[in-house]
Amino acid sequence: MPTFDDSDFGFAIEQIKSKDLGRIRSNAGSTGEESMSNSVEIPATRSSIADPTPYMHQLSLTSSQKSRRGSRNSFGASLPIPKLKRHSRLSSTGSAYDGSFQRPSMPPPQPSREILAAEMQDLSDEKVRAAKDMAFVFDIDGVLVHGDRLIPEGQRALEILNGDNELGIKIPHIFLTNGSGKPEAARIEQLSKILHQPISMEQFIQSHTPMRALSDYYNTVLVVGGEGYRCREVAEQYGFNDIVVPNDIIAWDPTVAPYRILTDEDRATSRPRDFSKINIEAIMVFSDSRDYATDIQIIMDLLQSEHGRFHTKAKDPISQRIPIYFSQGDLLCPTEHPLPRMSQGAFRIGLEAMYKALTGEDLERVVYGKPEPATYKYADEVIMNWMDIIHNDEKLPRNIYMVGDNPASDIVGGNNYGWNTCLVRTGVFQGGENDETNPANFGVFANVLDAVKTAIKKEIGQDFNFDWSNARVDDLRKDAADIAIE
Amino acid sequence: MPTFDDSDFGFAIEQIKSKDLGRIRSNAGSTGEESMSNSVEIPATRSSIADPTPYMHQLSLTSSQKSRRGSRNSFGASLPIPKLKRHSRLSSTGSAYDGSFQRPSMPPPQPSREILAAEMQDLSDEKVRAAKDMAFVFDIDGVLVHGDRLIPEGQRALEILNGDNELGIKIPHIFLTNGSGKPEAARIEQLSKILHQPISMEQFIQSHTPMRALSDYYNTVLVVGGEGYRCREVAEQYGFNDIVVPNDIIAWDPTVAPYRILTDEDRATSRPRDFSKINIEAIMVFSDSRDYATDIQIIMDLLQSEHGRFHTKAKDPISQRIPIYFSQGDLLCPTEHPLPRMSQGAFRIGLEAMYKALTGEDLERVVYGKPEPATYKYADEVIMNWMDIIHNDEKLPRNIYMVGDNPASDIVGGNNYGWNTCLVRTGVFQGGENDETNPANFGVFANVLDAVKTAIKKEIGQDFNFDWSNARVDDLRKDAADIAIE
Repeated sequence: MPTFDDSDFGFAIEQIKSKDLGRIRSNAGSTGEESMSNSVEIPATRSSIADPTPYMHQLSLTSSQKSRRGSRNSFGASLPIPKLKRHSRLSSTGSAYDGSFQRPSMPPPQPSREILAAEMQDLSDEKVRAAKDMAFVFDIDGVLVHGDRLIPEGQRALEILNGDNELGIKIPHIFLTNGSGKPEAARIEQLSKILHQPISMEQFIQSHTPMRALSDYYNTVLVVGGEGYRCREVAEQYGFNDIVVPNDIIAWDPTVAPYRILTDEDRATSRPRDFSKINIEAIMVFSDSRDYATDIQIIMDLLQSEHGRFHTKAKDPISQRIPIYFSQGDLLCPTEHPLPRMSQGAFRIGLEAMYKALTGEDLERVVYGKPEPATYKYADEVIMNWMDIIHNDEKLPRNIYMVGDNPASDIVGGNNYGWNTCLVRTGVFQGGENDETNPANFGVFANVLDAVKTAIKKEIGQDFNFDWSNARVDDLRKDAADIAIE
Repeated sequence: MPTFDDSDFGFAIEQIKSKDLGRIRSNAGSTGEESMSNSVEIPATRSSIADPTPYMHQLSLTSSQKSRRGSRNSFGASLPIPKLKRHSRLSSTGSAYDGSFQRPSMPPPQPSREILAAEMQDLSDEKVRAAKDMAFVFDIDGVLVHGDRLIPEGQRALEILNGDNELGIKIPHIFLTNGSGKPEAARIEQLSKILHQPISMEQFIQSHTPMRALSDYYNTVLVVGGEGYRCREVAEQYGFNDIVVPNDIIAWDPTVAPYRILTDEDRATSRPRDFSKINIEAIMVFSDSRDYATDIQIIMDLLQSEHGRFHTKAKDPISQRIPIYFSQGDLLCPTEHPLPRMSQGAFRIGLEAMYKALTGEDLERVVYGKPEPATYKYADEVIMNWMDIIHNDEKLPRNIYMVGDNPASDIVGGNNYGWNTCLVRTGVFQGGENDETNPANFGVFANVLDAVKTAIKKEIGQDFNFDWSNARVDDLRKDAADIAIE
């Protein structure tokens, strides 16, 4: 199955919870981090539906930073991003030093070394200050792994960031992928095994992870994508109260999609109700549609309905239109097939064109995932949270490095968001000195290890040593003692 | 099932054959009927893909005659329409006077009356000349029937045209529908029963009927739409030699469409081959896709391939692109569902938008069906053929009347093609004096019977009598005898 398979969707679990957020409309236009509100707003822009450029994330035939900014996210020109609840989560995971990193496949960290490392860090506070003011954001496929195959430099890079360095210090790093469907827990388990490194739920962002924030704004939602009913379970884990999937609607009225025939399993798992009497408040495309014809017809019916009631047609199609969200915008996705297959972005473009033809209007919608700003805002939250766990210091480090292989999503997104961007040659990018349309601002590297080492040397010092040695502690002790004597 | 259901597709049969046509490119730009070549060419026009207007056949939110002409049919700016082979077909059906009209449900015509009618016509040649210089083209749904329910005026109108008039003369009339999938034979059988009138294969045009002409230009074709493999049988009956359907490709390489799971029946009826070694020469969308995701992915692969070979990507995507044809362009289609469902036109618009996003190019394609000119050119052929059968005079009558209920397809198409158009109030049209965007040039009528009577009176005479009477022949005989004596 392709990397964007959803088959295990049902078991998705996330620790991060985002409750008690302010209403989306209430703080439209707030300025983001500075806002006192509980949600961070993303200003949205508009561009013509006729121009495909803004949609071309993965393919990027003609993408550029400019076209990126042209991406037309909508709805009150603002978008909610959850602030993470520290205490609740902390209590569930403890700090990075209490062995919570232990995994079935992992040996527990050596406490003795933990103690030495702490001492080491006390004795070289300048380097430590620099180390505590930086973080890394990694794309996964083509950077750390190829599908199920390890990229060796990826393991080494994570070993360094997990404390195998002269200070024995952990440097915050998170994982930012446009993958959707595969449950976070399963994905992390798999990654940890391949990389032989501990990976925590609090380090991990998939394309639909930020959509959990929407569960505070809508009661009844249509969830589309993934295998049949399973995306319903994910939405439940994200905190949505009343979740409708296309099968529920077909089971209620088969004439909605004349060509769709429900299997016995579909029927057994569907929850038909009288949808002419229920207001569906929003549409969420979580992952790739398995049945474009049915899903598009149902979405189109809802977008043209009176406040999301089936069998109705809105008198005012704009004011009565319910919002629609997409978890990511990639046109194409690499799979086992020699040529990349069409993905959620292609589905959305088709839907938008049909909507335009049927109504004469452009479709307002929100897209998450790289390179959309919403996803980077969310990454800030995750980084701050991780800083809190590792350094007991809940703040954004000054120097954030994005390492990715795809100029059209990883790099352009990071550039637009003000991160230092490192482009590696182990994945999508096969170009020359740098990508022409979306050049990485920190440079191009043979692999992720080169990128990480170069960044660390710049921030902490050219002499920084990339492995831990107990001996070095003794030297430092002696130096310190001598100083004390004098 | 909806009216555009394809389930009986497999049994489609047509008598009309179109063989030995010249190559499409060879006579591009020929002027049509006057051309000595065997095929009639339609000049094509182009318009921006961003403008949905040209696609909005059925819906016609903003359609107009101008936007109709904007419809962008492509390929060497020409399109083949078969000239019908008279003799072969005539021998198979005989003339209209030899009782070939007899149907299980019909009584045979009275030979005595046939003789009287012939005599009658000898005695009033002026009216006959007028009657032999006119023809009618009928849309079916909303004009003659509603689904399976008879519109009584429809039956009466056909009785008049089938000879129940003062001359006992038959007036040529054909049926032009955008319906697809239902086999012509089955559709005719059903119509004859509902209308209690004989209907011949030579009177009947569905949206994909003209596509038979393409069987002379392409050897290996991909046929899309309809239920699974059955459209393959229709294509075979249309004379296509080597027909590929999407299931054949999935059965060969399942990674082409990662989400499509073939049923046992799919697998049993599919014909996998190594499609990386076969050049598919053209894509034919016969009817509504049952699986947008799979069909669009396969079409997109072919459109971007090297001369229609799977697992290849064209170096020159334009020159190597294979042509694609659609049997009709209606965005929406009425079904049992309270709101019309999306149809082949919506599928095409989605496909075009995705193609534009993936390649940056507009997709060149040909669309058949009302109101596309190709379909009206083909109707000319069928009318001439029918004139030959009824009047033994293979020519286009001077006065052709189109009777339809849908301003956006029947009327606009007829207007653009220079026919007299009659809009009836028994179907889609619910407006006032006339349709505003696409007014019928011969006027609006309560029903088809009013339209037919008004047209006949205009052409043959206000005193024309709409029923047959043996008595009237005796009078005419006497008058003739008196004249002879004097």
